[in-house]
Amino acid sequence: MVREAASKIGAIEPGAFGERIMELADRLAAWSENSDGLTCTYLSPAHRSVAADIRELMRQAGLVTEMGKLPFHLDVFAFSEEEGVRFSSSFLGSSAVAGRFDPTLLGRRDADGVTLAAAMREAGLDPAKIPVLARRREELVGYLEVHIEQGPVLLEEGLPVGIVSAIAGSVLSMVTITGTAGHAGTMPMARRHDAAAAAAELVLYVEERCAQAPSLVGTVGQLVVPDGAINIIPGRCELSLDVRAADDATRDAAVSDIMAEIARIAARRGVRIDTQEVQRTAAVRCSPRLQSLLADAVKDAGVKPRHLPSGAGHDAMMFAGLTDIAMLFVRCGNGGASHSPREIITAEDADIAARVMLDTVLRLAEAS
Amino acid sequence: MVREAASKIGAIEPGAFGERIMELADRLAAWSENSDGLTCTYLSPAHRSVAADIRELMRQAGLVTEMGKLPFHLDVFAFSEEEGVRFSSSFLGSSAVAGRFDPTLLGRRDADGVTLAAAMREAGLDPAKIPVLARRREELVGYLEVHIEQGPVLLEEGLPVGIVSAIAGSVLSMVTITGTAGHAGTMPMARRHDAAAAAAELVLYVEERCAQAPSLVGTVGQLVVPDGAINIIPGRCELSLDVRAADDATRDAAVSDIMAEIARIAARRGVRIDTQEVQRTAAVRCSPRLQSLLADAVKDAGVKPRHLPSGAGHDAMMFAGLTDIAMLFVRCGNGGASHSPREIITAEDADIAARVMLDTVLRLAEAS
Repeated sequence: MVREAASKIGAIEPGAFGERIMELADRLAAWSENSDGLTCTYLSPAHRSVAADIRELMRQAGLVTEMGKLPFHLDVFAFSEEEGVRFSSSFLGSSAVAGRFDPTLLGRRDADGVTLAAAMREAGLDPAKIPVLARRREELVGYLEVHIEQGPVLLEEGLPVGIVSAIAGSVLSMVTITGTAGHAGTMPMARRHDAAAAAAELVLYVEERCAQAPSLVGTVGQLVVPDGAINIIPGRCELSLDVRAADDATRDAAVSDIMAEIARIAARRGVRIDTQEVQRTAAVRCSPRLQSLLADAVKDAGVKPRHLPSGAGHDAMMFAGLTDIAMLFVRCGNGGASHSPREIITAEDADIAARVMLDTVLRLAEAS
Repeated sequence: MVREAASKIGAIEPGAFGERIMELADRLAAWSENSDGLTCTYLSPAHRSVAADIRELMRQAGLVTEMGKLPFHLDVFAFSEEEGVRFSSSFLGSSAVAGRFDPTLLGRRDADGVTLAAAMREAGLDPAKIPVLARRREELVGYLEVHIEQGPVLLEEGLPVGIVSAIAGSVLSMVTITGTAGHAGTMPMARRHDAAAAAAELVLYVEERCAQAPSLVGTVGQLVVPDGAINIIPGRCELSLDVRAADDATRDAAVSDIMAEIARIAARRGVRIDTQEVQRTAAVRCSPRLQSLLADAVKDAGVKPRHLPSGAGHDAMMFAGLTDIAMLFVRCGNGGASHSPREIITAEDADIAARVMLDTVLRLAEAS
């Protein structure tokens, strides 16, 4: 049965998937809260309309009966609030399905003071039933996710899709540098303890150090001299530090070197540098077995299999340790900008991604 | 007559000037608008009370008749609004006396919407009479000013007073760096165009270049990644640039090198860097003749004459080109902080400064 289905993939009219995906994407986009981008805030009327529309589309497609032909049950999820925009907590939907939902989040409030529990009830959802969603380890075969790349690698290499090798772990810190403020005209250069100059050294060290391993990245995304004035030597500078790598050892070695450099900068410049780690997430390796099935499907679609790490976090991380995970990246047409009106994929790439995902599910069924 | 007065300086009880100066400073400080510092906003009730008090003290001292003994008339000024706090325009008082007052400033409003003209009338002052204050070149012998150093040189060298050699000119610019924003986890280091990293290079270059000449200073006082996020590569960074030197050639050479470096950074990193010069003030040399008289007086007070440039602007600049100018700096007890509750001088230093100023006026009279 599975072999038969697999053999039919080649018979599907090229472009049929892609055309339909774009048509459905446009249909769902019409529910957006604004017209200059796509905004669909968690549990807002727009979000609830989209969810209802997806449910209706799935019902019309008769998914339940059509996919009973496989040797396993197939759940297709459209997870809510991966980003954590409304309640400042990411992976709300996937954490529930993975059995990792933190019930204390139900009391968390959005910018308008509405709690997550109240927002769910208002949308006709019952917070008490969240634990029912949780999957058990023994009933799972694997987890597959398709996502836009959010980076430039596939675009630059001319590939429509890529296979995620690992999801990077991150260490996020806030850094505060305290120097000595002074008059820009009257304090000789040699006697200064300039907090911004110390920050500048740190920014360049992070850049240099994090260029030393392929999957390693380091970013100072926030940088400010609070209440800075044009004629005052900065007495204080605040910055954020985000270091990620596909494996924790590579990341931790970089963080350790950066902390040592921070100590050297502080000592040499006579400034105080306080660092506070605000988040540490372990890297997650994707399943070699599922990567191999994805690679076979990619090859069959006429594309060179390219394995690449994901620097961004994804819902898949919630299932790490619970079941094998794997992810397919689709080329980002603008070289990486995502969660933005500039985010774009082509119908052709969506078509290939859909074929590869279907083929991989069928290969997994064959191997089961 | 002058010689006779000069010979009496030595007879004045040591410390008498300093004690009286501190007593008067405390008396005037009692008018402050707040108790945790000294605030005396231009033309506020506090300022008007201080001005009336100074006038009364001068009247009681009988200044007019006592100083008629000199071969020239001596005006003693307590200038208002050197800093430009209330109307965002500095040197209001001194510009009027120097005949350089800009009458369009009369329409400028403070934070409460009150115009300068209205504030003056409310304080019983007549804006139409400002031109009457202007001194004419041919009636001036010279201009002498005493000011706290606002820097650490005298404190570190153990000197109570110093002779200003020149008032630094400045070039102030705003710099905007436009790079490419991106996801901190997904954009490889080699493909980034990070606006903050470009800014960091510039900050360190300014620091290094401006350490290459004694009176040269360069400061990045404002530095910010607008709307920076911990996981977003900075697409924009804004900073200010303040370069000063005791002579314009030294300053301009540094600014020119900095602009060339900006072009190199922009080209190498693939970012755009826009600079906008917002202010350019020429350096002002102090009169060698008046400096020499000050140095003689300093020597006679038992202090080693130390000539040093002023990195900050002063009322004296308003008289440059109109008459010879000179300034005496008094040691700042905290190493430079001024316009701050931490600003401090000792009675002993005030005493020496007062003796030196009086001696210099008498030496000028002798030489006239």
